[in-house]
Amino acid sequence: MAQTPKEIAIAGAGLVGSLLAAWLAKEGHRVTVYERRPDLRKAAISVGRSINLALSDRGWRALEGVGAAEAVRQNAIPMYGRMIHHEDGSTSHQPYGMEGQAIWSVSRGGLNAVLMDHAEQNGVVFHFENGCDDADHRGPTMVLNSGETVKPDILFAADGAFSRVRLGMMLRNDRFDYNQTYLPHGYKELSIPAAEGGGWLLEKNALHIWPRHDFMLIALANHDGSFTCTLFLPFEGNHAFEHLASPEAVTEFFQQHFATAFELMPTLTDDFFANPTGSLVTVRCQPWVFGRRIALIGDASHAIVPFYGQGMNSGFEDCTVLHQLLQQHGDDWDTLLADYQRLRKPSGDAIADLALQNFVEMRDKVDDMAFLFRKQVEKVLHKYYPDEFVPIYSQVTFSHTPYEQALAASRVHDSFFAEVLPGLDMNAEPDRVLADRLIAAWRGFR
Amino acid sequence: MAQTPKEIAIAGAGLVGSLLAAWLAKEGHRVTVYERRPDLRKAAISVGRSINLALSDRGWRALEGVGAAEAVRQNAIPMYGRMIHHEDGSTSHQPYGMEGQAIWSVSRGGLNAVLMDHAEQNGVVFHFENGCDDADHRGPTMVLNSGETVKPDILFAADGAFSRVRLGMMLRNDRFDYNQTYLPHGYKELSIPAAEGGGWLLEKNALHIWPRHDFMLIALANHDGSFTCTLFLPFEGNHAFEHLASPEAVTEFFQQHFATAFELMPTLTDDFFANPTGSLVTVRCQPWVFGRRIALIGDASHAIVPFYGQGMNSGFEDCTVLHQLLQQHGDDWDTLLADYQRLRKPSGDAIADLALQNFVEMRDKVDDMAFLFRKQVEKVLHKYYPDEFVPIYSQVTFSHTPYEQALAASRVHDSFFAEVLPGLDMNAEPDRVLADRLIAAWRGFR
Repeated sequence: MAQTPKEIAIAGAGLVGSLLAAWLAKEGHRVTVYERRPDLRKAAISVGRSINLALSDRGWRALEGVGAAEAVRQNAIPMYGRMIHHEDGSTSHQPYGMEGQAIWSVSRGGLNAVLMDHAEQNGVVFHFENGCDDADHRGPTMVLNSGETVKPDILFAADGAFSRVRLGMMLRNDRFDYNQTYLPHGYKELSIPAAEGGGWLLEKNALHIWPRHDFMLIALANHDGSFTCTLFLPFEGNHAFEHLASPEAVTEFFQQHFATAFELMPTLTDDFFANPTGSLVTVRCQPWVFGRRIALIGDASHAIVPFYGQGMNSGFEDCTVLHQLLQQHGDDWDTLLADYQRLRKPSGDAIADLALQNFVEMRDKVDDMAFLFRKQVEKVLHKYYPDEFVPIYSQVTFSHTPYEQALAASRVHDSFFAEVLPGLDMNAEPDRVLADRLIAAWRGFR
Repeated sequence: MAQTPKEIAIAGAGLVGSLLAAWLAKEGHRVTVYERRPDLRKAAISVGRSINLALSDRGWRALEGVGAAEAVRQNAIPMYGRMIHHEDGSTSHQPYGMEGQAIWSVSRGGLNAVLMDHAEQNGVVFHFENGCDDADHRGPTMVLNSGETVKPDILFAADGAFSRVRLGMMLRNDRFDYNQTYLPHGYKELSIPAAEGGGWLLEKNALHIWPRHDFMLIALANHDGSFTCTLFLPFEGNHAFEHLASPEAVTEFFQQHFATAFELMPTLTDDFFANPTGSLVTVRCQPWVFGRRIALIGDASHAIVPFYGQGMNSGFEDCTVLHQLLQQHGDDWDTLLADYQRLRKPSGDAIADLALQNFVEMRDKVDDMAFLFRKQVEKVLHKYYPDEFVPIYSQVTFSHTPYEQALAASRVHDSFFAEVLPGLDMNAEPDRVLADRLIAAWRGFR
């Protein structure tokens, strides 16, 4: 539907803000983005969050929709499965999906720069070092850290997990439900350098995990041959950040628990004490739309923990849905924003739950025999009955099934396997015969 | 233990702030209270919350401890039970506890004035119209709405459900868990005047309830012969505030659902449109102590819905526990505040849950036959075995059992009665024979 150009302000020039800006500008709106930090294309700044990210189907769909996928794909590294590094030093590989399906390691900064460039090419104006300090849905108005006040027609809050726009809404609106909950774990970014003469020291096309039950180390390949590693560890307790206060303690901890990674990390202790220890928050809130003119999007509305690799992907899907609604409702922004909240709020809550669940899977189950056997059974079921049985990981990562449907399905899957797995021979390789037998039970179960 | 006098600042001169101030001053500390509103003893101001409150044993213990009980008792009206006003116009009475046990209707403003006077008599200095705008645990410092900054040794945040001290902590501290959740219901205060020539138009010594499943009206007696009524009704839905937009709609609604109250409410429609519609929030957060020098207390740490009449009582119990710790730890404020959080946080969360549960009981169960029968059975069990079986209402209201123990016991009680009630004859009056029979089962069950 035809749209009357609106003055649209976006708080935050991160991944979601930049992508949304480009999309709105392409639809003919006048879009201005206000960002607290300097332009990351010009200054070497910390982007404040993980250095690389896993891009999956929902993210690609948005990038394709806005016309930025090709520029991103050039530097994206496909990861076809998990490489599990067991405590005894052995490794095993678990494919994420069917042949050819992958999640993609991309640089956060590189992707953000591509999206900013793309937005500017479509007429978006960026203001850096001038982010949102406060916002009021009556207007709407936004007060910037320069002291300037802007009065757009519509304001999108893409200013992240600690959104200042959202804080302004919390302070001005009655009956705003809000929840921020931290995990007992923190994270620390570390690194494995490129091989001498170039190339990667570990398998490039896998997401590496050293699962150790209550904690874990992961590594994703970068384009330059290095890996970015992330240690997830409780702040307090038995194995915890509180005990890693000296280079000796860090060295001993890594030698004991991550020997195969330790060998590849010459700058471990320097990195460990140079990099901050990050915390892991989940944010849920309601409503997402205020005064019919301010909408929260991405982390500002549903900040999630990183364990399903869906933080960015879910934010990009917010943009995809918003774009569809723009096409559908044209100038009717009241309906458009109401529909946006109605469609996306359940999805945001569901991916928050799924991400928390997947942390347990990654750190505690991926080297469990029963869990691995279930994964193999799921794989043959999906292989021979791809339309009837889709593993939850695939629903989340390789489909556009609403997250809330995937979450509901996860409960059905758990019940089904709790019922059938005890009757199966875990020493037999799951095959077509087993799939044929189980699909009948599955049809009866659903 | 002996204490070195400290400079203690308290944000908020409400019920908890004023009581805490008096107690700390009596222990020799120099206490200053900063309150955003004018002095309610001098200006006729809305206190922003309910006009009268139910004081119960935990509250009395604190008032006795600080030496203010006598002044309060003079104007407190005992309520020995619930008077249920059924839809057919009939009434029934449910005693709250054993003979002589009561909750007490007190005026919020009157009680607050008594506590302020008491605090001033003990040397506390109050600053009005100069409340907390922001606070920083490094120091600690508090910025007031006058622009002034104060730097006490210790700062207590008694500034309510929307505490500005807590907001300052949220913005400055990583890993602060915070949850604010609203009920779909709102509330509206209304009134029943005194009888002509004085006296009360309804039974004075009862808490009146007109339960109507998804909504309800309640009334508590005031000292002047009037009753303060509160309508609890969903904001949206079938029976909801959204439909009560005209005097005619309000009149029709009350005539239909609350006919016996309506007759006594000559100013109903005036009151309805003059008084605001309040919302009902539950706040949970963690931690309660920051930088070992700022502590949240009362609603600032655990705002709860009013349905157990424990908002003020739980805040006063915070003060009682703090006072005990003061005696115990003397100058060791680090340990004192750590112990305060350790002891009170589980209690704050538990009473929040209990209060939400009691809303369902008040509006939906108090005229249910099975529920009433269970209440009668509980009564005889408690009567003949007062030490072995204590109903949850009595544990919460007439004891100092930690709320978290009462909450845990409520689950045990529910399981027990789910098991034994179906085997009992609901038409027989519960008696000693039944109590003797059930106590054996109860002993086996616990």
